[in-house]
Amino acid sequence: MSPNAHRRAVELAHASRLVNHGPTVLVCTQHEGRRNVMAAAWSMPVEFTPPRIAVVIDKSTTTAEMARASGQVALCVPGAAIADLCTTVGQTRGADLHAEGTDKFARYGIAHFSGPVLGLPLVEGCSAWMECRVIPEPHTQQTYDTWFVEVVSAQADDRIFRLGRWQVDESNAALHTLHHLGAGTYVVGSATRTSRVLDGR
Amino acid sequence: MSPNAHRRAVELAHASRLVNHGPTVLVCTQHEGRRNVMAAAWSMPVEFTPPRIAVVIDKSTTTAEMARASGQVALCVPGAAIADLCTTVGQTRGADLHAEGTDKFARYGIAHFSGPVLGLPLVEGCSAWMECRVIPEPHTQQTYDTWFVEVVSAQADDRIFRLGRWQVDESNAALHTLHHLGAGTYVVGSATRTSRVLDGR
Repeated sequence: MSPNAHRRAVELAHASRLVNHGPTVLVCTQHEGRRNVMAAAWSMPVEFTPPRIAVVIDKSTTTAEMARASGQVALCVPGAAIADLCTTVGQTRGADLHAEGTDKFARYGIAHFSGPVLGLPLVEGCSAWMECRVIPEPHTQQTYDTWFVEVVSAQADDRIFRLGRWQVDESNAALHTLHHLGAGTYVVGSATRTSRVLDGR
Repeated sequence: MSPNAHRRAVELAHASRLVNHGPTVLVCTQHEGRRNVMAAAWSMPVEFTPPRIAVVIDKSTTTAEMARASGQVALCVPGAAIADLCTTVGQTRGADLHAEGTDKFARYGIAHFSGPVLGLPLVEGCSAWMECRVIPEPHTQQTYDTWFVEVVSAQADDRIFRLGRWQVDESNAALHTLHHLGAGTYVVGSATRTSRVLDGR
């Protein structure tokens, strides 16, 4: 089976649900023949329609430089099986590898494919993928390292996200999302809890 | 044992870690003798020092109105044991209860205590609590419902957060954080995964 046999388009109206629960994401960028990928623990949806997400990208990073230049970022949602890869791209610097004429994709053998709308590199083995256009908000980028982006394509692995919803169970443990506690330790989104609205007094 | 025997102050330098992993939070407000609490799935740190957090508060809510008037919000991090309460305050409207001369705390019997710096109501039984001052950013509040706040007091239950870190294990399951998938279903932060940095090629 090819690595992407389970990849399915997600309706844009459901795209914000892909990061509703606070997973760590991989931020992929591409500009003038260079490409990069880093991890970001800090992101959140800000709107369902249009699907908009805020993500914190430190201004000192290659990702920030490339996002500013290209106006585009991809957000991939990694699963438990690739936690080491997630930490690795979070703790290495794209600029160092670019100076050597290589990049993280090559150095760490990261399989990837091209996004359907913007052609951005998307990491194989993730649970979900989005391509986004950066909304120009220089003040929040400068003051809070906070970038507002709008999703223009969304896909997910149908073993864990289908019919517009996350479907978490024991069968898809490799794809359970990662939520960064710090220092390379994550809580893994494995157990679910369905709640109810209480009666008042 | 009193309900707060395990509540300990958290250094402000560690406060952003309390929401680093994307948990749903309870947003508490107080103004001119009224008080309110709602759930917010969408929040993230934007800075460690000073500890700053972005949180999405829909402009139609009582919480937004009270946060604007008072310039203050509290963020509480609920655990698995109070998932029903979390969903309940997320799906009921403070304005409706205020019109009846009551509020969610009274209607749902929500035990609470006063924050040490701002005196904001904080919900008993949570895993962590922060009081915050709103940073005036009318453009992002208006355009993205996104509020930037700065933490001025932080506390956590020492059964799950100590020495500046989340300590998740089977002994503290009631305090495991909730990460909202949608429609009242959460993934619970119960399992942890420690990762390593990979060797490059």
